[in-house]
Amino acid sequence: MRSGPVSEIGERPLIGLLTGIFNKTRNPHLIVGPGHDDCAVLEISEDEYLVVTTDMLHRKTDFPLQMTGWQVGWMSAAVNLSDIASMGASPVGFLSAIGLPRDTDVAFVEDIARGMADCAKACGTSVIGGDIDTHDELTITGTALGTVRKEELLTRKGARVGDKVCVTGFAGSAGAALHAIEHAIPVPDRLVNALLEPYPRVAEARELARSGLVTSMMDTSDGLALSLHDLADLNKVGFRIHESALPVHDDVRKYVTLDPDKLKDLALYTGGDFELLFTAAPDILDEVFKGFNLSIIGEVVEQSVGMIIERKDGSNLSINRKGYLQLGN
Amino acid sequence: MRSGPVSEIGERPLIGLLTGIFNKTRNPHLIVGPGHDDCAVLEISEDEYLVVTTDMLHRKTDFPLQMTGWQVGWMSAAVNLSDIASMGASPVGFLSAIGLPRDTDVAFVEDIARGMADCAKACGTSVIGGDIDTHDELTITGTALGTVRKEELLTRKGARVGDKVCVTGFAGSAGAALHAIEHAIPVPDRLVNALLEPYPRVAEARELARSGLVTSMMDTSDGLALSLHDLADLNKVGFRIHESALPVHDDVRKYVTLDPDKLKDLALYTGGDFELLFTAAPDILDEVFKGFNLSIIGEVVEQSVGMIIERKDGSNLSINRKGYLQLGN
Repeated sequence: MRSGPVSEIGERPLIGLLTGIFNKTRNPHLIVGPGHDDCAVLEISEDEYLVVTTDMLHRKTDFPLQMTGWQVGWMSAAVNLSDIASMGASPVGFLSAIGLPRDTDVAFVEDIARGMADCAKACGTSVIGGDIDTHDELTITGTALGTVRKEELLTRKGARVGDKVCVTGFAGSAGAALHAIEHAIPVPDRLVNALLEPYPRVAEARELARSGLVTSMMDTSDGLALSLHDLADLNKVGFRIHESALPVHDDVRKYVTLDPDKLKDLALYTGGDFELLFTAAPDILDEVFKGFNLSIIGEVVEQSVGMIIERKDGSNLSINRKGYLQLGN
Repeated sequence: MRSGPVSEIGERPLIGLLTGIFNKTRNPHLIVGPGHDDCAVLEISEDEYLVVTTDMLHRKTDFPLQMTGWQVGWMSAAVNLSDIASMGASPVGFLSAIGLPRDTDVAFVEDIARGMADCAKACGTSVIGGDIDTHDELTITGTALGTVRKEELLTRKGARVGDKVCVTGFAGSAGAALHAIEHAIPVPDRLVNALLEPYPRVAEARELARSGLVTSMMDTSDGLALSLHDLADLNKVGFRIHESALPVHDDVRKYVTLDPDKLKDLALYTGGDFELLFTAAPDILDEVFKGFNLSIIGEVVEQSVGMIIERKDGSNLSINRKGYLQLGN
């Protein structure tokens, strides 16, 4: 048993300690257990898996004061439904446990509920249950459930050398918005909303799962760089990413006019985008891409090549293992 | 839209407002939705339902400082697994989102994890996932999942006039223990543990569900009186409870020696026991009762009779609608 405060051990080693304890008990239903993926996976019938995930958010770190109640609710549902999407599953329900300061206005709580309901509906499901508690700090724990045909389950495991590396949507928008809010720099509403109203990529995920072409997938909530490192470690591969292919929104390019290096850093090292990062067979991607905003940003390479980004001038840089983590380190 | 602080509206009206919002969205998988029972119920296959529940606990109101880390973990799992039991289901997994003050000792967190793992294992399942967050106050949101054959699902709905009213275990033990702790009165460890280490009645619940004799069921976490009122309202019936039949543990009788009225009040109006309250066909209960600590405490009567407790001297008293609630009122 270790001692010392959790702030010193860091989030990932602490998760490792706890999952070590949890994984000691055999569970005949469990296909993917704690510490391994965006969701736990349970076998629930002959044809289907249940995927389930839970996430705690709270005022100080997750709900800046600019957020409306509706956005607080939307965000609480979105971060969990994004995890369901990253397994290729269809959401079947969302639950929320809400801890409210006693002086919270009832109208604000109703707005939270509407935000949750709207996000769940946008993802093809509904809020099916929850809990209300009093709490000094506004705290919301969401739980999302999804189902997926067994042959369509996507996990973090499976990337092969030669696969293309792809992402949905844009990278760095949420990071740029957070920087703008923290420095009180005016930016377009749609950029702020990329941070405050992330849209779970359920439709894209289902299309990718049905295609049978995706070899591994996860969401980019902790940032692109950290997600790439997670996939690389698990699959014992490397990645070559092309800077010119990083999908950066025009609003972000306008926001970062002086220093082109900042663009790359925003795209790689900031979290909160809740896009899908996936690897896929290189040949038939075009068909899947129709109708969706997907970008090929690089290739899976041998582990010995490492984790590199090819600059526009042809030079290579290492991609660091850093991003958004809750605890220390 | 109402305004004013949540502390003034009260827990149940607030839940009513939110479930009104949540229930607007149609969900083809949903059998029992928010606000209706101990768990949400989803149809997941031809033969089975999935039941799921979530509950937020935190230091100030749920984890007295006497609690060990192991007990904190056990309690977080138990309150949710008790809800799974109350639907007659078998647990298939437990998830926990843990918000930790930064100075929490790692060894304490490992103890929490062991407590959760042990409780899940005692209920025939395991911890399958979760989340770690930093938080000013120790906060744990658990989520439990269970499955049940469709014909064995038990809900709060179904009590019929003439049914027997039954409970598992003892009533008022947790309430007596809480009183003792708050007043620093020494009591046996096993009484304190009735409060700090509630044991989910999964085995009893499964036996009751298989029997086909139970007409309605819920757990008594908010106290026996409030649970009886919930069942009565929903089923449009009344209850006649016999004071002499209330299952009060000897430790509690010894604790309350001076005032016999206090015994009844402890049994009726304090929460935290996490026993099962159920109604059942009167004739064949004996067979089900074998091997379990179950008590018949009364009968289902016409709604016009009301909610009464028959004293030992033959007089009747009304059972009040009061118990343990999180918010106001």
